Amino acid sequence: MIIDKLIEKILELKNPTAVGLDPRADYLPPEIIEEATSRYQKTLRAISWAFLEFNKKIIDEIHDIVPAVKPQIAMYEQFGADGIGAYIETVRYAKEKGLVVIGDIKRGDIASTAEDYSNGHIGLVDVFGEMTRVFDEDFVTISPYLGADSITPFLANCKEHDRGLFVLAKTSNKGSADLQNLIVGQQHIYEIMGEYISKWGEGLIGKYGYSSIGAVVGATHPAEAEKLRKVAPHTFFLIPGYGAQGGRASDLAICFDDRGLGGIVNSSRGIIAAHQNKKYAGHTFAKAARAAALDMKEDLGRHISFGGAL
Amino acid sequence: MIIDKLIEKILELKNPTAVGLDPRADYLPPEIIEEATSRYQKTLRAISWAFLEFNKKIIDEIHDIVPAVKPQIAMYEQFGADGIGAYIETVRYAKEKGLVVIGDIKRGDIASTAEDYSNGHIGLVDVFGEMTRVFDEDFVTISPYLGADSITPFLANCKEHDRGLFVLAKTSNKGSADLQNLIVGQQHIYEIMGEYISKWGEGLIGKYGYSSIGAVVGATHPAEAEKLRKVAPHTFFLIPGYGAQGGRASDLAICFDDRGLGGIVNSSRGIIAAHQNKKYAGHTFAKAARAAALDMKEDLGRHISFGGAL
Repeated sequence: MIIDKLIEKILELKNPTAVGLDPRADYLPPEIIEEATSRYQKTLRAISWAFLEFNKKIIDEIHDIVPAVKPQIAMYEQFGADGIGAYIETVRYAKEKGLVVIGDIKRGDIASTAEDYSNGHIGLVDVFGEMTRVFDEDFVTISPYLGADSITPFLANCKEHDRGLFVLAKTSNKGSADLQNLIVGQQHIYEIMGEYISKWGEGLIGKYGYSSIGAVVGATHPAEAEKLRKVAPHTFFLIPGYGAQGGRASDLAICFDDRGLGGIVNSSRGIIAAHQNKKYAGHTFAKAARAAALDMKEDLGRHISFGGAL
Repeated sequence: MIIDKLIEKILELKNPTAVGLDPRADYLPPEIIEEATSRYQKTLRAISWAFLEFNKKIIDEIHDIVPAVKPQIAMYEQFGADGIGAYIETVRYAKEKGLVVIGDIKRGDIASTAEDYSNGHIGLVDVFGEMTRVFDEDFVTISPYLGADSITPFLANCKEHDRGLFVLAKTSNKGSADLQNLIVGQQHIYEIMGEYISKWGEGLIGKYGYSSIGAVVGATHPAEAEKLRKVAPHTFFLIPGYGAQGGRASDLAICFDDRGLGGIVNSSRGIIAAHQNKKYAGHTFAKAARAAALDMKEDLGRHISFGGAL
């Protein structure tokens, strides 16, 4: 089961980190910009090619020390068809290198439309009778505003194709309080979502006691994370917001059990733009990313213990 | 202002209809399938080309009788980069023919990421210094689970590039009740969203008294639509769910004022797959779409009066 594969990689590497592959033009080193523009001038294809090249070099340096990557599709989608092509190639390359890929897509739509998203991302699409894999992520993130019937088509493909989800419960941004912290009866919306997510995941619990249907729980909200851990004990957390957004390792320990399991912490800018941080001066961008990923592993390791599992 | 452009087209045509350009392989006529597969075999490019060809022929037949089209990006995204290319070409072709284009994308993410979606869809992206338009829709739909700061980057481009939004309030699906109908204090979540949307739109109210920041309000929920009309009197509604999903014209009148203004009603399958309906037998698919669009106009006209505005 995909959640077990993710957990086993976390245990093997003693590192519950996902590297956010969220490239930006101003992270790119001059040599990649030069090659991209000499090949394709200043076009959507050029920047998409540059992002893919940047990602590949990062992946080459980190695939042996982190279990997963999380490309954020918005960074690619903004550049249209070429950008989506670079996203898909990034997913493929990361999987070839053995990484678990979490596609941060935050899709959510009525059931008939959700089925199209689900088939394209984690299932098969029918191309005039040829069943074809397109995006092929291991996990995708899903937004729950449209309710349970918008999730069902994703659950179906999770079962059939051994994939997983991280459904938004409490996101890392400040504005997440506007809707997610509203109180219904005795509960916050994010807790109600946590209960839904826990229920949706019941049929997909793996051998470590966690489900392939996980929840997004921002590192910036430790009090909410603690409540979610209680209402959803079998739910694995994707934890964004560490580092640049302000989330601290000491605040995250509450999400993890005594085997060091319970979640995977994402860092994007802090790793892939580490070469712009004085601390990593003198490294190439990819070597800086590796050094920053190792520092993050050490930081998390001070608060999350893998002793019980090994 | 874009909302005024949409309203003026509605008044000119006396027709508050958007045609949902949500193609499916089983809507395609044999001649398009044959040409697609003979050009590109059974590939993602073939089906993407077929969707674009299908859309163009529908657009050619309806652009003089309806004010707007609403392509649902999921139908295209499922086919990867080629699909996204077909979506972008559909937007371009519809705009060339004078139609207002509502991109049904339902994106929603933290602010820094929302900015990328916003720039790609309704603003400009920076390609090594060349400011470039990519998706270029007139309006896009937005999902509000992440709160106000996830909407702000879209509002900025609406102001700068004269674009509009339809933010999800009460969606047409049955499961919409799971979250949207929860009660916080004395209000449903969808009403709270209606108040937010109304507030976000205050700076973008056009000469007819409606804002370029609209709300998605399902035709299948007339009681909720009535409540939303009260809390958001200056908010234009995008109303999905008419026809195949069960929404009736008689239920929608509540959304409209005595000038016939207040919303635009979407129909997808009922129009673009009309050639599969016995009622339109003997027509080509595009002529059947035209006939069905005219029937929908007549049906809406029985309940929505344009008298006061002309």
